[in-house]
Amino acid sequence: MDTTPSNIGLIGLGVMGSNLALNLNDHGYSLSVYNRTYSLTEQFMAQQAQGRTIQAAPTLPEFVNQLAQPRIIMLMVTAGRAVDAVIEQLLPLLNPNDIIIDGGNSNYKDTTRRWQELTAKAIHFVGMGVSGGEEGARHGPSLMPGGAVEAWSDIREMFQAVAAKADGVACCQWLGEGGAGHYVKMVHNGIEYGDMQLIAEACHLMQHALGMDFDAMADTFAVWNQGKLESYLIDITSQILRQKDVDGSPLVTKILDRAGQKGTGLWTAQDALEHAVPLTLIGEAVHARMLSARKDERVAASQLLGGLAAPVAADQRQAYLDAIHDALYAAKLVSYAQGFMLMQTAAAQNGWNLPYGDIALLWRAGCIIRSRFLGDIKASFEREPVPQSLLQDAFFAVELKQAESGWRKAVALAVMQGVPAPALSSALSFYDGYRCADGSANILQAQRDFFGAHGYQRVDRDPALHFHTHWGTDRAEELL
Amino acid sequence: MDTTPSNIGLIGLGVMGSNLALNLNDHGYSLSVYNRTYSLTEQFMAQQAQGRTIQAAPTLPEFVNQLAQPRIIMLMVTAGRAVDAVIEQLLPLLNPNDIIIDGGNSNYKDTTRRWQELTAKAIHFVGMGVSGGEEGARHGPSLMPGGAVEAWSDIREMFQAVAAKADGVACCQWLGEGGAGHYVKMVHNGIEYGDMQLIAEACHLMQHALGMDFDAMADTFAVWNQGKLESYLIDITSQILRQKDVDGSPLVTKILDRAGQKGTGLWTAQDALEHAVPLTLIGEAVHARMLSARKDERVAASQLLGGLAAPVAADQRQAYLDAIHDALYAAKLVSYAQGFMLMQTAAAQNGWNLPYGDIALLWRAGCIIRSRFLGDIKASFEREPVPQSLLQDAFFAVELKQAESGWRKAVALAVMQGVPAPALSSALSFYDGYRCADGSANILQAQRDFFGAHGYQRVDRDPALHFHTHWGTDRAEELL
Repeated sequence: MDTTPSNIGLIGLGVMGSNLALNLNDHGYSLSVYNRTYSLTEQFMAQQAQGRTIQAAPTLPEFVNQLAQPRIIMLMVTAGRAVDAVIEQLLPLLNPNDIIIDGGNSNYKDTTRRWQELTAKAIHFVGMGVSGGEEGARHGPSLMPGGAVEAWSDIREMFQAVAAKADGVACCQWLGEGGAGHYVKMVHNGIEYGDMQLIAEACHLMQHALGMDFDAMADTFAVWNQGKLESYLIDITSQILRQKDVDGSPLVTKILDRAGQKGTGLWTAQDALEHAVPLTLIGEAVHARMLSARKDERVAASQLLGGLAAPVAADQRQAYLDAIHDALYAAKLVSYAQGFMLMQTAAAQNGWNLPYGDIALLWRAGCIIRSRFLGDIKASFEREPVPQSLLQDAFFAVELKQAESGWRKAVALAVMQGVPAPALSSALSFYDGYRCADGSANILQAQRDFFGAHGYQRVDRDPALHFHTHWGTDRAEELL
Repeated sequence: MDTTPSNIGLIGLGVMGSNLALNLNDHGYSLSVYNRTYSLTEQFMAQQAQGRTIQAAPTLPEFVNQLAQPRIIMLMVTAGRAVDAVIEQLLPLLNPNDIIIDGGNSNYKDTTRRWQELTAKAIHFVGMGVSGGEEGARHGPSLMPGGAVEAWSDIREMFQAVAAKADGVACCQWLGEGGAGHYVKMVHNGIEYGDMQLIAEACHLMQHALGMDFDAMADTFAVWNQGKLESYLIDITSQILRQKDVDGSPLVTKILDRAGQKGTGLWTAQDALEHAVPLTLIGEAVHARMLSARKDERVAASQLLGGLAAPVAADQRQAYLDAIHDALYAAKLVSYAQGFMLMQTAAAQNGWNLPYGDIALLWRAGCIIRSRFLGDIKASFEREPVPQSLLQDAFFAVELKQAESGWRKAVALAVMQGVPAPALSSALSFYDGYRCADGSANILQAQRDFFGAHGYQRVDRDPALHFHTHWGTDRAEELL
């Protein structure tokens, strides 16, 4: 048995952990692996790890002793209490300057807490978002590290080697202190929810408003994947729509329309509320999954309230398809603009200096939301000065204006045909609200002042001044 | 000086507290009042309390000694730490079975915690939502009590006397244990956010898509207030739109379109996410306020992206006004359906047995969202069996079908003219999603299975079974 110290230790041999281990080893890094259930370790050693420079450890002390110093230990265990439990078990076995990396889908607030606790104990803690699923872990994930910057020089080369590459650059860049890495991963997942919901709505429109069959829909997504919508999710949607069940009918017609959630989309929606950022599209996407779960209620309601309009005539189909394409593109841009708005607001409140261009770069490949489009987003963050929002970027503004009429046409189609399109239409409402210099909140402020004497600011006076009208009596205005 | 024990003690002589004190006294209840800043107490005694059976107490021990036993003490202090601080000061002065009522806008989780803590000390704690603003507090608020049911018989008569009356019944009914009262108040406030946003969007459509002037808008709301939209908020909106500034121009054109929030709408949106209830309309209303706060960004974006379409021709105006009326009505119904859906879900999770008909009744008068419509909602909860949702109520289903074409017409108008109407259109998306027996979440589940092997259920198999397709390899399906 090899007793050379391993370059890195990995704890947790589930799907993601075992694939990441193999990926690291492919790149020349020797590993020690540990799993709470040792039989899983034995199975991994007997199968995937066969003939590799990977050592198994039946116990944590043995595992720790197998590692080169300073030790680099990557946790690929279920987010939550398991992470704390493993850290607690590891602590007595470690030396100052050892490194613990949490590669799970941890909540960034937990990561911030752990980083604080471990920093006090001279352990360098890194929270690293890992995206790309099984395939990504095995052959090139998108990695989002943050936490103890002291660890970065020791782990950079290793993780940039195994990460996906976008235009030759590794999709693994340092994001900031504390929970910054897991924060960015959370927003990534929220955006993923939004992208998926937009595509699902486009499918629903094609099927019910345009009367298309699934092969024609698959063809459409395949064509779209050659253009500005090119992305992993568009690609797999084309494949999904083409998949047949054993009886030859489209498989998707057999899949139950109740969507699950693992929570990171929900976290993003909650975080937006906490940071007062109008993240409407992801919010609608999360709510759409919640509504999907109420299947029985929907079936009952459809009896009482149902009835889609007949699909549009076949000769209008292509024009509407183009409109849906433009709607998908524009709404997606709104979603990313909202996502970056959230990160910018959270960064300011958490004292992070997030590298937005790098974030776009490291989402450009390896992860679920990888797309051509993220290259354009990266370019936006390289402009001088950086625009206040992606919606105010010179390139995207032109794109939006070009897409706008198709977008409106597609949303109006959904509205008139009765096809639910909450994300496509919410994005348009946001766009119209965002470009509205004089919105309708003056009415809200007047109402609030009427019933609660909350006061209002005036457009023609110093905004530091607040006024109140005596609505119920002499209707005079006073300065508060 | 009067030394007869007071029926009730009230702490906190702000706008709401002082008005509630006068209201209680009008109904024959003697009071002792205490305020942390004694000068405010002296001012109150010298002015509003003059000649009334109201005693002032400069200190809490004196205050407590002035009260009949078991003591009934109402807190009208700022929600949050102040409530805990006052309770802590009161505790050593109280006897078992004394009653503390928190009439502030407390978070229901705080109320549940306080109820548990005080129950352990044999003090009966009641969390009571108070709605109606200054005017309501003075002449008849809507009251939403919950917590220690042991207190109810001692306080019922008093608070039902001072509460608003709807069809002769007091808008004050017992709601349940723990934080049930403040929970219902929170949802009330969330619904208030939604109602206000819907009205603001209707105003914006009238102004920009129909080209109406403010007096015509005021006239429209006055007419609507005679029909099924009759409500306090419609009424005051008419008055607001008619209000002129000193220069004769409509005052609302001088009010800055940045809306404030005190947090209860936000809590409702957060709570919906926590309980997995698709409360989309209030969510959009909260986000709309957040977007309104980004005034500078909106002004900048309007330069780059702006441009509303020209208003519709004058001869089409009335048809569109009717459509906006129907949209407002139907969207409002969706919002209330979502709100009751939230309460039903939260009640199940918190072990409350909320009296939904009573809730509709006690919102029927006295509070900000009071309306004719709540009478119809109350009727729905009196049917046997109670429909699964207001959207499945036989009466409302007919109303919705009648309003539907106008609703679609109004939302399509917003979409095509570029007027932001996030709440009106989100409500329609929800309605279409709710009545959709087969939604688009099958696409989401296929995607999740493709990239994450999350599995899916099949429509033609036992829903307990989960399947996975080998998307990347032989495309066979396996049972998980």
